[in-house]
Formats: sequence, structure tokens, C-alpha cells
Amino acid sequence: DPFQVEPFLTGSDDGKPGYSSSSRAGMNGGGPKKLVDLLEDPLPGVGTYEDFNTIDWVREKSKDRDRHREITNKSRQSTVALLRSLSDAFSGWLLMLLVGLMAGALAGGIDIAAHWLTDLKGGVCLIGFWFNHEHCCWTSNETTFQERDRCPQWQSWAELIVGNSEGAFAYIVNYLMYIFWALLFAFLAVILVRAFAPYACGSGIPEIKTILSGFIIRGYLGKWTLITKTITLVLAVSSGLSLGKEGPLVHVACCCANILCHLFTKYRKNEAKRREVLSAAAAVGVSVAFGAPIGGVLFSLEEVSYYFPLKTLWRSFFAALVAAFTLRSINPFGNSRLVLFYVEFHAPWHLIELAPFILLGIFGGLWGALFIRANIAWCRRRKTTRLGHYPVIEVLVVAALTALIAYPNSYTRMSGSELISELFNDCSLLDSSQLCGYKQPVNVSETGVGNSLADRPAGEGLYTALWQLALALIFKMLITVITFGMKVPSGLFIPSMAVGAIAGRLLGVGMEQLAYYNHDWLIFRGWCSPGADCITPGLYAMVGAAACLGGVTRMTVSLVVIMFELTGGLEYIVPLMAATMTSKWVADAFGREGIYEAHIRLNGYPFLEAKEEFEHSSLAVDVMRPRRGDPALAVLTQDSMTVEEVETVVDSTHYSGFPVVVSQESQRLVGFVLRRDLLISIDNARKRQDGVVSTSQVVFTEHAPTQPPEAPPPLRLRGIMDLSPFTVTDHTPMDITVDIFRKLGLRQCLVTHNGRLLGIITKKDILKHMAQIANRDPDSILFN
Amino acid sequence: DPFQVEPFLTGSDDGKPGYSSSSRAGMNGGGPKKLVDLLEDPLPGVGTYEDFNTIDWVREKSKDRDRHREITNKSRQSTVALLRSLSDAFSGWLLMLLVGLMAGALAGGIDIAAHWLTDLKGGVCLIGFWFNHEHCCWTSNETTFQERDRCPQWQSWAELIVGNSEGAFAYIVNYLMYIFWALLFAFLAVILVRAFAPYACGSGIPEIKTILSGFIIRGYLGKWTLITKTITLVLAVSSGLSLGKEGPLVHVACCCANILCHLFTKYRKNEAKRREVLSAAAAVGVSVAFGAPIGGVLFSLEEVSYYFPLKTLWRSFFAALVAAFTLRSINPFGNSRLVLFYVEFHAPWHLIELAPFILLGIFGGLWGALFIRANIAWCRRRKTTRLGHYPVIEVLVVAALTALIAYPNSYTRMSGSELISELFNDCSLLDSSQLCGYKQPVNVSETGVGNSLADRPAGEGLYTALWQLALALIFKMLITVITFGMKVPSGLFIPSMAVGAIAGRLLGVGMEQLAYYNHDWLIFRGWCSPGADCITPGLYAMVGAAACLGGVTRMTVSLVVIMFELTGGLEYIVPLMAATMTSKWVADAFGREGIYEAHIRLNGYPFLEAKEEFEHSSLAVDVMRPRRGDPALAVLTQDSMTVEEVETVVDSTHYSGFPVVVSQESQRLVGFVLRRDLLISIDNARKRQDGVVSTSQVVFTEHAPTQPPEAPPPLRLRGIMDLSPFTVTDHTPMDITVDIFRKLGLRQCLVTHNGRLLGIITKKDILKHMAQIANRDPDSILFN
Repeated sequence: DPFQVEPFLTGSDDGKPGYSSSSRAGMNGGGPKKLVDLLEDPLPGVGTYEDFNTIDWVREKSKDRDRHREITNKSRQSTVALLRSLSDAFSGWLLMLLVGLMAGALAGGIDIAAHWLTDLKGGVCLIGFWFNHEHCCWTSNETTFQERDRCPQWQSWAELIVGNSEGAFAYIVNYLMYIFWALLFAFLAVILVRAFAPYACGSGIPEIKTILSGFIIRGYLGKWTLITKTITLVLAVSSGLSLGKEGPLVHVACCCANILCHLFTKYRKNEAKRREVLSAAAAVGVSVAFGAPIGGVLFSLEEVSYYFPLKTLWRSFFAALVAAFTLRSINPFGNSRLVLFYVEFHAPWHLIELAPFILLGIFGGLWGALFIRANIAWCRRRKTTRLGHYPVIEVLVVAALTALIAYPNSYTRMSGSELISELFNDCSLLDSSQLCGYKQPVNVSETGVGNSLADRPAGEGLYTALWQLALALIFKMLITVITFGMKVPSGLFIPSMAVGAIAGRLLGVGMEQLAYYNHDWLIFRGWCSPGADCITPGLYAMVGAAACLGGVTRMTVSLVVIMFELTGGLEYIVPLMAATMTSKWVADAFGREGIYEAHIRLNGYPFLEAKEEFEHSSLAVDVMRPRRGDPALAVLTQDSMTVEEVETVVDSTHYSGFPVVVSQESQRLVGFVLRRDLLISIDNARKRQDGVVSTSQVVFTEHAPTQPPEAPPPLRLRGIMDLSPFTVTDHTPMDITVDIFRKLGLRQCLVTHNGRLLGIITKKDILKHMAQIANRDPDSILFN
Repeated sequence: DPFQVEPFLTGSDDGKPGYSSSSRAGMNGGGPKKLVDLLEDPLPGVGTYEDFNTIDWVREKSKDRDRHREITNKSRQSTVALLRSLSDAFSGWLLMLLVGLMAGALAGGIDIAAHWLTDLKGGVCLIGFWFNHEHCCWTSNETTFQERDRCPQWQSWAELIVGNSEGAFAYIVNYLMYIFWALLFAFLAVILVRAFAPYACGSGIPEIKTILSGFIIRGYLGKWTLITKTITLVLAVSSGLSLGKEGPLVHVACCCANILCHLFTKYRKNEAKRREVLSAAAAVGVSVAFGAPIGGVLFSLEEVSYYFPLKTLWRSFFAALVAAFTLRSINPFGNSRLVLFYVEFHAPWHLIELAPFILLGIFGGLWGALFIRANIAWCRRRKTTRLGHYPVIEVLVVAALTALIAYPNSYTRMSGSELISELFNDCSLLDSSQLCGYKQPVNVSETGVGNSLADRPAGEGLYTALWQLALALIFKMLITVITFGMKVPSGLFIPSMAVGAIAGRLLGVGMEQLAYYNHDWLIFRGWCSPGADCITPGLYAMVGAAACLGGVTRMTVSLVVIMFELTGGLEYIVPLMAATMTSKWVADAFGREGIYEAHIRLNGYPFLEAKEEFEHSSLAVDVMRPRRGDPALAVLTQDSMTVEEVETVVDSTHYSGFPVVVSQESQRLVGFVLRRDLLISIDNARKRQDGVVSTSQVVFTEHAPTQPPEAPPPLRLRGIMDLSPFTVTDHTPMDITVDIFRKLGLRQCLVTHNGRLLGIITKKDILKHMAQIANRDPDSILFN
């Protein structure tokens, strides 16, 4: 007889003080378990969750503590058990190592593949089509340093097809080939996503935030999602769409972690433990995206994680480092650098420059707020109108539009990360980039021998570059709004940073020229003498990038630390901090939500934001159900209902759980039982347990009440009851209640008045209440 | 009539749904308040705490939210109120700025003063006695780079007194003067601490941890403590005792923050808000101690803070940066560097070197565990025997002993931070330090032209240095055990790091010589060819320092990040991490407590460690009072007791709070009232309220029950009652209960069974229970 509920009730008295130790079976927040083997679920299904539901953090953590206690106790008995206990203790570290290695390797592969495919849009390598442009020219050995990106082995499509690389006709051939490849990549990306894993689209960060807060979305972090996302991410980035791969890398890393969790029972069977690993994986994702391990850990802590104990901090850091070094040993950028944009500035900044930096912060904040509104409006339109029915056509149209407009402008033609890299770059004398098209000093000795990097007047090339950048800025600002949210993997980091970097560079060059021509102005006097290198436009680009990214995501510390890890000097933290702070304040003035929270809300996920304080002065009694005038709360009594009566209560409602009370009259709370557990247990009992029929009594007490001898045997369900449900009184202010929900990770909480059960508050009730206060539609919260 | 309890009870119905809005007066976790002015306490004393008691985090946070709500609501009414609301919002940032500036300035002052006094032990500057050695020789302008620490203006005491700097007699004069100054400084330090602020002794971190967890120690962060600690810290460091100034700087920064809090009502009146500022101040302390702002923030997060919301993270970072830049602009080290030990290594490390690094980790862990045991045993002896009665003599004896032994050995004579700086240093060819006493290569061209930093055989000087270092290691290990815990300000960071750095350098030089003489061994082949610079002893010193500090404090991420900020290269994070991790594991095997937790326990502070999981399987019913057989819980009834009866209950017990129930028979819980609030209110009512006598009825209900007309007027106390006391059921496992206590910051929690009140669990009960489980004396927990 595999029905295992009955045996628990007898329990085992381990001789500890306390007067009801025989009822400990159900003590773990509701999860029933055999005392003989805590590692096994007694009934398949009991204690698990349905898709699109929220987990019970308290129960999961308690389950894990029980498991750990069991292993510790056993480890004293035999050497094998001791070894098992040790391997259990180290499995977390092993898992972190594996996650770091796998995510680092995947990120390296994605970088290499994306680089190759991006170059393929422009031409092909004759030595072997699998070489990218740079690699092709390295292999050829014929190039000098100056012309390292022009070598005979690399042929543009025009050269290959019409044998000519100059002239209008060749230009048109290249243009058309560029559009062709862009469309092909975009088409493949969207088709693969639709065919294999719809969850692979988007950046994934809103969903990961929701999952980490305790929500269940089956398959979101599965192997099909991983494979599809990895491939389509490469395709989407290569198609030239205005999107980045940094956000999706977080999703990829989380998929790796989730899949690797299946190797370890400890993490496979426990939703809370698995979320600790996923938090670390989020850090790994950012670590490989930017080569910033510390920034990654802080990103996970600040932006995505919900439950982040200190143990996870340390392990995240380990995993982030492993991943960063794995990526470096793959060396996808070919420069042995860990970081995506390595920057080295030569000149310090001056206090007066804080004014333009704060200006960039204001721009970043305004753009962030505007972008979020526009993007959400567009996504809502996609959800509600017919636009959403044609995702493939949408992607193709946007890709065609992007390619068509982007090709003529060299700053939009290059990939987002190349653009940012070029904008961050400080001009040296040898630099051939258009952005460094300054007039050469006529006579070097005139301005002093030493400083070859001194400020110089802008030349023809630079003015052209500025025009192109201004157009690129407008284009990027518009196209990103409609790109983010399409059914392809798409990150926001790179497009946001690109917008900020362009704005920053424009301002930087403007400041530089202002200072060059007006170095006798009061504000420039003293630090901007002729021949001095006083303004670094690259730093402005960097500050602008941070400001725009901050405006969109509302990251603070992690953003500054990521940027700090890029430059490596504490020197430039203050400008970054000033801009990020301004940007956050400005953006917050238009709406407190970052882009990820806005998308969470758009999708109706049950996410209780930990950063916002609940400011309203309502009480628990205002939020709880039943409302005044509603029918009374559906409750079960501990020993006076039959199986049929219980089934009627369950069937007539859609609640996911029911309080158990002493009696209908007293309404004194005994425990809480989940609908799913109740249904599974009754179903199982009817099928397997002898004599349990519709008239059997359902008993939640320790000892069944005496019954007439002819009565059918009772169904004892104390084992599936949560004996320690959380309660608050009706007078508890909602701010405290919300705090309790957040900090303990509750799904529901019962409300009592003077010891009598009065009602129930669920996470969904709270979210609906919050929506109502903010004058939003409370029915936008879709899940439990 | 200033008695303000009565008016609250009428409340105000603001028309919100909910059926008991007229009773909202007492809704805020027990804090009574006038609805008309939430910013003022109605009765002086009500809602405040006694010394050596724990605060109620929920109540404090709720109070702050009410205050904020009030200000927000008012801000819509007038421009003045709007400005006030804005200034309120920015006061947090302003406060952080001030804390950063003040702590940075103080740290700079301490550095300069300590440097000067330390040099004074050796000699005096003739140009002006206020110059330190280095500064004195800068001023003189006569020295070359080589001899920058020998200049005629700086005279040792022997030169000054006997006119001779050579020979045995001069040596003895210098020796005696050294001891004299050491004793003088130590004497002044201990006397000042005893006279002005006994709280200024020690490192302060254990107490700050306890305070941040919600404990109240009046005066611990006051202005006298600040002044005394600043002065005596300089004296103690200069006396040559084996202690550092880094830990006490955290205390100094917290004092600054606490004092500055008094400028802002928001922080002055709210214990929870003030603790947020103190958490940030802890970050500031580490930031100025090591010039590591990010490391400081992580230190606060990992090591000292209890409640660390994300808003605090961001503000801490800001304050830490401000402090670091303030310190840099003071430039106490004279090198424009932010960091205490600036290190630049030239050679990468090899994977095989992980073995010695892990060895250093094991050494660090063993030393950490051993140090904690020995130090705690010594401190316990100080507490329990007559040793503790003579703190001045103890300090003088230890100072004399230290000076006597330290002077002959140049590595113990120099200050701890100088020693570490020298040990971390990588030898260049020009280096005149004894530690770089390698044999010069006979023929440079023999080993190849390029690498002048190649490994070389150790010369005479180096062997002497190694001997001296070995002796210094033993001395430092022993003397630190008895030094830490004396009645002078004393930090542990520098002594721990010094021990590790010496051990690391010894191992590093050993490895270097091994590799030099055996470069054909399998393990060295390939990366340690002759003439290569393959082993960096300075890196070993650094890894050793991290390992020992990790073993003593059990810091992890923050330690690695602090060390990373010292070197500035991600390159060396892996060795640091390997050593820190090993050190923590090894040390944890001997006892899970770091030195700060051990001192907290020694002092009996009520500190609930957030890092440790509660592993035992007891239930709430096993921990709660009354125990089985004890008299029933002292409760008040809501409307059937007289003032006299209440006073009898209060006087006959020493509990700090009493549950209020519907009636003795039903034991259904209504609320919770604090002893302090009850006594103040009754006392006030008897004095001021007309007609309240001993036979007056005490009423906690909304409406007073009808009474005979001749009865005295009732005393209505609903206003001071917490209407939302936290409850758990008797079946709640203790691991969950402990989790609730930690996460919500509770002081007490009531235990119910089927809706009836059964008992109470306080923080102290939990700590006693934990002590009992760990086979320690439960009565070692001294405070509530």
C-alpha cells in the first residue's frame, strides 16, 4: 500500500521537551513527509507546484533544512554517509564551477559567431569562409599595421560578384547584399524562436526577475530555450537590428544553471535552492557580458535577485570569476582583455566638467523615461491590436527598415558594441578614425614639445563624423523603441549605451572645441591653457552611456561598478556617479519603474517589488477577502466534514488553499491546506485506501474523534496540513503586511480578529490593491 | 491638559472601506500617536527605549513610513510644505555627504598624527618638531633620492642627547627613548580612555554589529567617545603596540554618523533610520582605512550590517566615495594614492602556484582559529580574574614588553602598515631594502639583456632578513593575542595581515629560491627558465595577508574586493580567492565564529547571527515561556481589570511586555502592551487625569463597557497597545521562527494554539535556546 499519509500521523517522539511532539509530521510549513526518509515525497505531486504559480519560500527553505539535518545526522553513523554529507556540502561549489565554465564557454562561442556573421554581411574571406574580417587579414600576413582591415583575402560582396569595389554600382551591390543578409538572419531568428522555443525571445530579464521572486514558468529556463536562444541571439545580433546580446546572456547563463541543477538532487528538488543558483547565474551573465565580475554580482544583488543570502554572494562571485576567466581563455575579442570596451584615458577631469556630466545625466534620465513610456505603449499596442498576430512580418519589416537606413551611415552600419568602443576611445595622434579627424598642429614645437595629445581644432573629418553621429542618434532612439519587445532575443544594454555614448561624444567634442577656441574664458582659465589636453570626449561618451543605461534600467551601484571595471580607475567614478544619480532622479520623477518592472507589469506577472515602500495607509482588513458583503470565507473544519462536503467546498471555489478551523462557530484557526494537495490526497485515498468513501469523515486532528462503529473509516489529512500558517491581525497596517510578504516570501496570509479567523490575503490581493491605489487596472495582475 | 491618550481613541474616519477604521489610532505596531501631528510623541518616553534593550524594527519602520506619508500629504497643500518635503527627501544624501567629509577628514588627521608620533619615538626634526621624518627631509632639500631618509635635520634621540649616532651607547639611548615614548603614549591612551570614554576601547566592530542589529548602547557612538577614540587611537598606534587603526576607524566613522544624525529630525528620532546611516558609516570607515570604497560597501553588507536595503547600498557607496576622495585630497601618505598599500606586480602567476597559495590559506585558517580561541580564553581570564582590575598596568606591561622585544628587530620596530607595505613590495634592481638583498647578476648579458627583474639567488642580506622575519612572525603571533581586547583602541586588521604577510613572504622567497636552483624540475619547467621572473614573493605576502585576515574575521567577498582595490588588477583575484576560501573552510572546521562574533558572545550581547542557519528541529512550543510546569503567562484582559490589578501584574513580574486578551477564560489575543509604555501612561494618568484612581477600570477596547454611574472614570489605554502583535502557532518549527525574527527584526512573538494564546518567545529566549543546543551556558546572554 503506497499511500503514505497515514503513517506520518503517528510521528516519532524523539524525547525533546514540548507537549505535542507526536504531531510533528506536518510541521514544515505544510509539506508532508515521511519521517523515515525526508528526501522522498510521500505522494507524487504533493508539495510541488503548478505552472504559473508562486512557490512558498518558507516551505521550500524548511524542506531544505530538514534535508540538511537528515544528512548531518546520518553522517555520524557511517563513513559513506559522511562522504555523502561532504559531497553534498561541496555540490554547491561544484555547480557554481560548472555554471561558470558553461556560461563562459557559451558567451565566447556567441561572441565569435556573432562577430563572424556580422562581418559576413559585408563580405567573405577567400581563405576560408569561416574566418571573420579581422581574423582573415591576420592569417594573410601581408598587411601592415596601418591597413590591417584591408587585405586582398577579404573581399566585399561587390568585389566577389561584380569584381569591382569602387563606384556606385558596387556600392549598390554591397547595400543589397547587406539588406539580404540582414533579412535572412532576422528571418531565421524569428522562425527558430517560433518553432522551437517561444520563451527565447526578448531579453529575459523581466521573466528572470519574476522567477527569482518565486514564480514558476516551466520551460523558461529549459534546454530548448537555451539552444534556441543561443543560436537566435547570434542571428539577431548579426542581423544589424538595434539590440544587444548582454541582457540575453543573463538568460543564457540562467538556462545553463537551471539545466546543471538537474545533476544535483539538492537543487533539482528544491525551488528555493534552485533560485539561489539562478541568482548567481544572473551575476555570471553580466560578468561574461562586460567582463565585470564584481559588477555582475552587484547587478544580481541590486537588479534581479529577490532572496540573496550572503552565501549566495560569495558563490556568485566565484562563479562570475570562473566565467570571466573562461571567457578570457577563449579570447573572443583577440586582445586578451577581459572587458568588452577597454578604455584608458590620459587626462584627469576637472570639477567644472561636472556640469556637462550632470547635463548628460538629465538627458539620460529624460531619454530613459521617454523610452520606457514609448516602448510600453508600443508593446501594449502589439498585445492588443492585430500587429501582434504577425511577429515574423514585423521582424522582417523592422530588419529591412534598419538595414536600409543603417547602411549609408557608417556609425549605424557598424555593430552596437563596435560603435560604443569607438565612441569611448580617446584619440591618439595615430588614430585614423574619422572621429579623430582633428587638424594636425602645423608646428609641434609651437605648442610645446611634450603633449602630442593636446586639444586641437576639429577638422573636416570630425565635422562629417558629428553630422553622421547626430543622425545615428535620432535613428537609434527611434528604432530601439520598436525593436525591444519583438519576438527575437533582444537586449537593451547596448542600444541604450549607444544612444548615451553618441550624445556624450557630441557634447564632449562640443566642450572640447569650446575650450580650444575660448581658453581665456573664466571657466576654462587655469586648466585649459593652449596645448593642454583638458577635455576627453571619450569620457563624455562613457558618462553618457552610463546615464542612458541608468535612465532605462534604474541601476545604480552595479552600473557604476561595471563602468569602473571597464576603465579600471577610481578616478572616473565620480563623473559616472554624478551622471547616474542625476539620471535616476530625473527618470524617477516621471515614473518609478525601470524598463524591466514595466515589462513585468505589462505581462501581469505577480511580482512584489522590494525596492518600493508601500506608502498607503490601508489596513489588512481593507485588503483581505472576503470583502464586506461577500459570502463568508470558505473554510474546512478539523473533524466535522465528510469527504463529499470537502469536495463540494473545493469544487464550488477556485481558491488555491483553505483554512482549517476548529468549528464553524468558533472560527479558531488550526491550519491551512492547499487545494492541490487536498485533491491529490482525496483522489489517492479513494483509489487506494480501503473503505474511504464520500461519507467518510475528513479528520485534521491528531486523534480521530470516536465514531459509531458502522461508520466508514476516516480520512486523516493532518499530514498535508500546514500547522503553522502565517497570520496577521485585521488592524495590521498594510505596509507591515507587505513587508512580511516580501521578506518571508509568502503566498498567502490569514487575517484574524481577537483570535478568530476573519479572512485571507494573497500576494495577488496585495498586487491588485497596489494597482488600485496607483489608479491602474487591478485585473492586469494575471497570475497567482 | 497635556494628557494625550484619550483623544486618539476617537480616531478619524477617512472614509476608506474596512470595518473598523475608527480604531486606527494604535495601528502602528504599538506606537501611540496623535493623528493630528504624527511627528510628535504624545507622551514623553512612550515609544522610546531603555539603555541595553533591543529596538522593535517593525514599529520604527512603521513610524518612519507614517512620518513620510504625513509629509507627502502635506506637501500637496503649500509650497513651503513642498520644499520641506524635498529637503526631507534630500536630507539623507546631505547627511551622507557630511559623514563622508567628516570621516575622511578625521582619518586624514589620524594618519598624519600617527605618522608623526610614530617617528617621534625614533628622533625629532630640528626645523620644527611637528614634522615627521619624511616630511622633515623633504623640507631640507639637501638629500638625494637614495638617501631620502637620512638628512641632517632629522636627529635621532642619541644624536640629540649624546651627540653621537653610532656605537653601543647611542643604540642604548635610542632603545631607552623608544621604550620611554612607547610607554608614555600607551599610558596616555589608557588613561584618557578610562577618564573620558570607556567605550572608546577595543575595535568597536562587535558592538557596532550589535547596535546595527537593533541593540541600544547609549553613549557608544557619542561625541565623547569620538573625541577620545580619535586621540587615543593615534596614541595607541604610535606606542608600537601590535594593533591597527583600521577597525577603530569604522567606530570613528559610525560616531561621526551618529552625531551628524542629530542635525536631521528624520534620523534623530528614528532608531531604524539611524541604523541605515550607521551601516553606510561602516562602509565609510573601511573605505578610508584601505582606500577601497567598493570593498567598504561590501564589508558593511557582508560583515556588519543587519538591515541593508538597496537604498542604503547606493548611499553607502556615495558616502564611501566622498570619504575616499576627502582623504586623498588631504593626502596623508604623501603619494597622491588613495590606497594604503599600493602594489604593482610585473609577472603573472602560474597555475602551479595555486598549491602554495592554498597552503597559505590553510595557514591563515589555522592561525585564525587558534587566534580566536587563544584571544577569547585570554579575554575571559581578564573578565573573571583579578587581571581585569588593573587595565592601566596591563597596558603598560604589554607596551613595555612590546617595545623591549620589538626594537632590536627592524621588522617589528617599524609600524604594522610600513611592514606590510614593505612585504607586499616587489623588488626592483634599485631597491635598497634588506628584503631585496639578492646577489647581483655577475654578468647581465649572461642571462639575457632584457629582464633585469629575473629571479636571482638570495644574498647575505636576504638571509638575515628572513631570520628576522621568522622571529617577527612568532613575536607578532603571540603578542597580538594578549593585545587585542586591552582597554585601548585596537584594530585587528593590520596585525592579522602582518602575520600573514610575513608567512607569505617567507614562503614566497622559499619558492623563488627553490625555482631558481631547481628550474629543471618538472613543476618549474616551461615557466621558470633561468633568467625569467617567475615568482613574485610580494604576491605571496599579499595572499598570506588575505588568508590570515580571512581566518580571523571570516570575511570573504569584501576581503577579496578590498585586496583587489589595492592591486587594481583582476589578474590576482584568483590567488586571493583560493587562499581566502581555503582559509575560511579550514577556520570554520574549528568553529564557525569569527573574532567579532566570538567577542559579541563573550560580552553576552543579544545578537542573532544572520549567516548561520538554525539547524535544530525544535518547535516554537519547546522554546516559548512559560515552560511546562511554570505558572501561566502574565496577561492583561481588555476590559475587566482595575488599575491596581494591572499594577500588581506589572510589579510582580519583570517582563518587558504583556499580551492583552479578551478574557482569562478564552485567552483570545487582542494586542500587546509594553511595560515601559504602560507604566508611563498609568503614572501620567494618576497625576494628571481627573478621577483615575486604583479602582478605575483599565480599558483596551474601542468603547468602554457600561459601568455603574458611581464608578470612577476608566483609564483608556488602547492608544499604547500594539494591535498587530506577531504570532506563530505552537507547531511552527524554530528554524522558521528564527527566520521571522531575523528578517523582521522582532523583539518578541506570541505563540498560539488553535487561536488561543499559549506563550511568548523573545529574542533572548531564542538566543538562550541556541546556547543550550550548542552546549553553552544559556545565562551568558545578558541583555534583552
